[in-house]
Amino acid sequence: MAQLDLHPDRLLPTEPGVRAVAREVYAAVKDLPIVSPHGHVPAGWLADDVAFADPTSLLITPDHYVTRLLHAHGVALSDLGVGRDDMDAAASRAAFRTLCAHWPAYRGTVVKTWFEAELVEVFGVDVVPSAQTADAIYDRITEQLATPQFRARALYERFGIEVLATTDDPCDDLADHRRLAEDPAWSGRVIPTFRPDRYLEPAAEGWNAAIDLLGRTAGTDVDHYSGWVEAMEARRAYFREHGATSTDHSHRDVRAEPLDRAVAEELYLRARKGDITPDEGDTLRRDLVFQMARMAADDGLVMTLHPAVARNHHGPSHRAYGADVGADIPTQVEFTRSLQPVLEAFGTHPGFQIVLFTIDETVYSRELAPLAGFYPSVYIGAPWWFIDAPDAMQRFRAAVTETAGFARTSGFIDDTRAFLSIPARHDVSRRVDAGFLARLVAEHRLTTDEAIATAHDLVLTNPKRAFRL
Amino acid sequence: MAQLDLHPDRLLPTEPGVRAVAREVYAAVKDLPIVSPHGHVPAGWLADDVAFADPTSLLITPDHYVTRLLHAHGVALSDLGVGRDDMDAAASRAAFRTLCAHWPAYRGTVVKTWFEAELVEVFGVDVVPSAQTADAIYDRITEQLATPQFRARALYERFGIEVLATTDDPCDDLADHRRLAEDPAWSGRVIPTFRPDRYLEPAAEGWNAAIDLLGRTAGTDVDHYSGWVEAMEARRAYFREHGATSTDHSHRDVRAEPLDRAVAEELYLRARKGDITPDEGDTLRRDLVFQMARMAADDGLVMTLHPAVARNHHGPSHRAYGADVGADIPTQVEFTRSLQPVLEAFGTHPGFQIVLFTIDETVYSRELAPLAGFYPSVYIGAPWWFIDAPDAMQRFRAAVTETAGFARTSGFIDDTRAFLSIPARHDVSRRVDAGFLARLVAEHRLTTDEAIATAHDLVLTNPKRAFRL
Amino acid sequence: MAQLDLHPDRLLPTEPGVRAVAREVYAAVKDLPIVSPHGHVPAGWLADDVAFADPTSLLITPDHYVTRLLHAHGVALSDLGVGRDDMDAAASRAAFRTLCAHWPAYRGTVVKTWFEAELVEVFGVDVVPSAQTADAIYDRITEQLATPQFRARALYERFGIEVLATTDDPCDDLADHRRLAEDPAWSGRVIPTFRPDRYLEPAAEGWNAAIDLLGRTAGTDVDHYSGWVEAMEARRAYFREHGATSTDHSHRDVRAEPLDRAVAEELYLRARKGDITPDEGDTLRRDLVFQMARMAADDGLVMTLHPAVARNHHGPSHRAYGADVGADIPTQVEFTRSLQPVLEAFGTHPGFQIVLFTIDETVYSRELAPLAGFYPSVYIGAPWWFIDAPDAMQRFRAAVTETAGFARTSGFIDDTRAFLSIPARHDVSRRVDAGFLARLVAEHRLTTDEAIATAHDLVLTNPKRAFRL
Repeated sequence: MAQLDLHPDRLLPTEPGVRAVAREVYAAVKDLPIVSPHGHVPAGWLADDVAFADPTSLLITPDHYVTRLLHAHGVALSDLGVGRDDMDAAASRAAFRTLCAHWPAYRGTVVKTWFEAELVEVFGVDVVPSAQTADAIYDRITEQLATPQFRARALYERFGIEVLATTDDPCDDLADHRRLAEDPAWSGRVIPTFRPDRYLEPAAEGWNAAIDLLGRTAGTDVDHYSGWVEAMEARRAYFREHGATSTDHSHRDVRAEPLDRAVAEELYLRARKGDITPDEGDTLRRDLVFQMARMAADDGLVMTLHPAVARNHHGPSHRAYGADVGADIPTQVEFTRSLQPVLEAFGTHPGFQIVLFTIDETVYSRELAPLAGFYPSVYIGAPWWFIDAPDAMQRFRAAVTETAGFARTSGFIDDTRAFLSIPARHDVSRRVDAGFLARLVAEHRLTTDEAIATAHDLVLTNPKRAFRL
Repeated sequence: MAQLDLHPDRLLPTEPGVRAVAREVYAAVKDLPIVSPHGHVPAGWLADDVAFADPTSLLITPDHYVTRLLHAHGVALSDLGVGRDDMDAAASRAAFRTLCAHWPAYRGTVVKTWFEAELVEVFGVDVVPSAQTADAIYDRITEQLATPQFRARALYERFGIEVLATTDDPCDDLADHRRLAEDPAWSGRVIPTFRPDRYLEPAAEGWNAAIDLLGRTAGTDVDHYSGWVEAMEARRAYFREHGATSTDHSHRDVRAEPLDRAVAEELYLRARKGDITPDEGDTLRRDLVFQMARMAADDGLVMTLHPAVARNHHGPSHRAYGADVGADIPTQVEFTRSLQPVLEAFGTHPGFQIVLFTIDETVYSRELAPLAGFYPSVYIGAPWWFIDAPDAMQRFRAAVTETAGFARTSGFIDDTRAFLSIPARHDVSRRVDAGFLARLVAEHRLTTDEAIATAHDLVLTNPKRAFRL
Repeated sequence: MAQLDLHPDRLLPTEPGVRAVAREVYAAVKDLPIVSPHGHVPAGWLADDVAFADPTSLLITPDHYVTRLLHAHGVALSDLGVGRDDMDAAASRAAFRTLCAHWPAYRGTVVKTWFEAELVEVFGVDVVPSAQTADAIYDRITEQLATPQFRARALYERFGIEVLATTDDPCDDLADHRRLAEDPAWSGRVIPTFRPDRYLEPAAEGWNAAIDLLGRTAGTDVDHYSGWVEAMEARRAYFREHGATSTDHSHRDVRAEPLDRAVAEELYLRARKGDITPDEGDTLRRDLVFQMARMAADDGLVMTLHPAVARNHHGPSHRAYGADVGADIPTQVEFTRSLQPVLEAFGTHPGFQIVLFTIDETVYSRELAPLAGFYPSVYIGAPWWFIDAPDAMQRFRAAVTETAGFARTSGFIDDTRAFLSIPARHDVSRRVDAGFLARLVAEHRLTTDEAIATAHDLVLTNPKRAFRL
């Protein structure tokens, strides 16, 4: 059985002189608190201080980063618990064995990096996952999950989380967030994020039902465009009262273009009747997104964009397992022309802030750095989803820094459903940024003091500024 | 005269610690056999066990990588033997002198790397090419080409080739492949590849003549769509019987979309009458490509895509010299949306495998790695054509590995007409992969054992799996 | 106060062995003269041998690289002197203080690299800019600007400039260039560049007024298409007589497509009446650009393209401050198909040369290197504008060299309005190229002698060849 350990220099640059600088920079930030301004951990876990049931339902089933690569290697998603609620102990153990037996498939991936850190640092596992070691690892994790030290709040404390943002539907009553706020035994900070995508796609299936719900929730007449606007404003206010500082948007593109009011009203009425083409739906959606930007300028909620992913690319998997099962595939994106109307209107508005994320790396040096290097409202989001990984992070810094510097970037976001991976994810970011800064020091572009100050900013100052925390 | 030698550490990482690991990884794979699942060497060379005539017709004239850069430096292609069959000894020697005199033009190119390896390792040349050394090198090569050790079969053995795929027209009778298969003196493996492009472009010049030939060859009535399908199925079966394991496709885009059968039939009939617009030709072509995918799922021939190259970009050169003279220029490509219908239908079909190649590096992290990291049928092809080069290979691994790992990549293909460059090309790939793996070891992302096992897989396991060899 | 100095090894590779080679390569080129074939320094500065007024109007106000990032950090452009002519001493000093107080915003940017080199090497400043040091630095620079050694011609000499190209309107009388040519006390070389963009956009505001001026200047009847052609030919001849060797073009795209003459004539007539749609304007513009290519083949002026930037992206800033204030944002570009008609016609024409610049890095390996590796008329331009920076330059060389080598690239252009930054900009390029070449030496792809010869070519041979200097 191969020994599993984490080398203290992992992910740092390989040249010894640069590594020495990187160690110094990393040491200055490695124990700083975690600021997580965008993610998908359920607030209820902390409100209820849940105990986690078993390794598979905690570490495998909900994490599409883990399951998708097993699927590519021929494993059925259902064998990993995806889309089912009948996994008994034997099935859970079998799924964990499957992961361990496929461990070489993860070589070179960031999932391996995260998972190893969880095994070693959270659970004290010291053997490499394999068919032979699967059961022992499974048992060790199970045993620990039953202890108070592994309940949600204890882990939140142990991880050093300062603030954790969830992602929530505009009609959510945020009861879990309220319970936490009112709980005298809770001293953490869990804030909601306003994610209105499904209310902004008038030609999509389910839009009318969503709008009905929105009207009931907000108490406005959503049969007219103005009622939609009022409802959104009301729900944004509700989220702000419950601690939200940002809204999140994920559409096919990032276009946001105001329509003539009469045109918008007419399209809206037809959409409410289900009488709207996909193209018209896009047109109206772009107006509604523009409205969200206008509201953001007014109420100060930071707008974050996570665009251009073909969701549920594989219909059969979608029908069998639902959304978010690893079958979302990125597409090309364009920001320069698409955001022009919004930036024309609000690019220098003191209330407006927008953070731009991408999986399409081509826009880093071509569009994002030039935009954020001019507009005070624009921040460049950290590498996201498929490119939240060490080499990709290096490419990100190399592509944007020479034009936009460090201060115009958002700082790291983990965007994860995998609660236990949060420390590992932030640690990877700190290591890679330390390595990047160390190279600039070794190339005599920064002093070590400047590098350390910058690393500190990237962990704390930048996300707090970009997300108005 | 400057000495030409090959440093044993060439192309390995520069940091001494990483280089030491890379040496160890490279040493473990450098002498493994060559698996070449996609290329353009004529089977007849091996069937006939040809003796090669002279250095120019072997090393320069047929290799558009070599000739195109000379053309860019003002050399007429005809002076290099392109498009003519009247090169006498003096002309051949003059062409070789031209190449040697322009040797500095190749600095930094991968052509220099390959050519130097051919000179030193195949022919034992030990001086740098130049106007002064051209004749001596020419004579040395000529002399050796006349010996039995330099006939095609002896080189095949010496190069350690385990399997070599050719590229063939669906109507080819594969006589050379048959002769090899029936030759008791031949113990190698040369397999055909089914390349049906010209039968799938209904609006292109020459399509009807090609279809007529297809009908005669397959013995089906190709005046109807169903006859085209039958003919293709028959020819695919013929190729499979002669050892083929894959089909190859190179169109402007990778879209593959089934038409309603009546629509397809009608377009097909009009195409047979020469009455089809370019747009309709694209529409029908995308249906025919979808048919090829359906056949691939049925008969198990692996589908490989080499898309998005503007062929014969320079009309005057095309008219003077024909195709494949170095005037093909890549264009942007899109996979996510374009392949959705095929992957919806066959992405998890056990019979279906598709290998995606690109010259557009933007799709690596954005589309190819996410696709191959979910769909069991999708493999990421090795860097191809213009980007089959050391730095580009590094970028490839860095772009895809963090999402898709190593096992979802195809392993190296040489795709070459230049028989003598095959060992050098595979060697470059082994060196670069060793260097990439060594960096992961030095960054404590892999152990040395894992790196060596992975390097071995990339040379043997991956191409055999991806191409079903 | 932190000490400011320039490390002699700055920007060289970090691995000591590679750095040693890089030092040797860099030493061989660092003192070579500066060839600047494309930029925006006014010829009048040298004709008048101006004394520069103050640090802000010299180093900050006209340099949108500097001002745009301050704007992104919330500084009003007017506070930096942009768009106003009423900056008194106090306002100038205040602007300089603002820059120094925001110095950390430039960490990691190439602006910091250039600015530090100007401070240390031009002005002998030895403290890091900050709120505390701003006044002392300001005073030191002001003091020196009053001395003869800091007049324009003395700096031209001191910088070692061999040739400096300006950018000029076709209707410019080039009086400053004439004065220089006729001045016996002047021994430098300042040449104009023909930049006809505004005469080639028939649907743009101001086109008709520009064409009226063109007609008056050239003395031709520009109410007809043929008169436009004659006028352009005449002005090109005028520029050539005054030393011009190139024309510069910056449109939304690089398409250049000849129209049927009657169609062109009809569109032209309608454009002269102001009766042309934006799409028709694009169509006619593409014909006019094709005409420029035809003229280039005839008269030998090198055509340079700097395409695909959304100019004046932020309307309010444009209206308040005018053009060139840092609010231009790049967009995606396409060369392969767009340039096909021009290269079909002139790609092997001995009179025609075209240099292709881009901010969209995706085209390097996909389009530019393949084009320049085949067409003798095509040169790959150096990284430009936002990507004229060390890491981006490394990416450039790594992306194009393996296909096109070094000789098909243009050599460095500074493209700057910031006269005092010219030596720093060229020095960055020499350092980065030395580092890139040193890596190839360390990877045993080049000998040190080859690397030094190549570095020398990149500084002198390449720009002189690409721009026909």
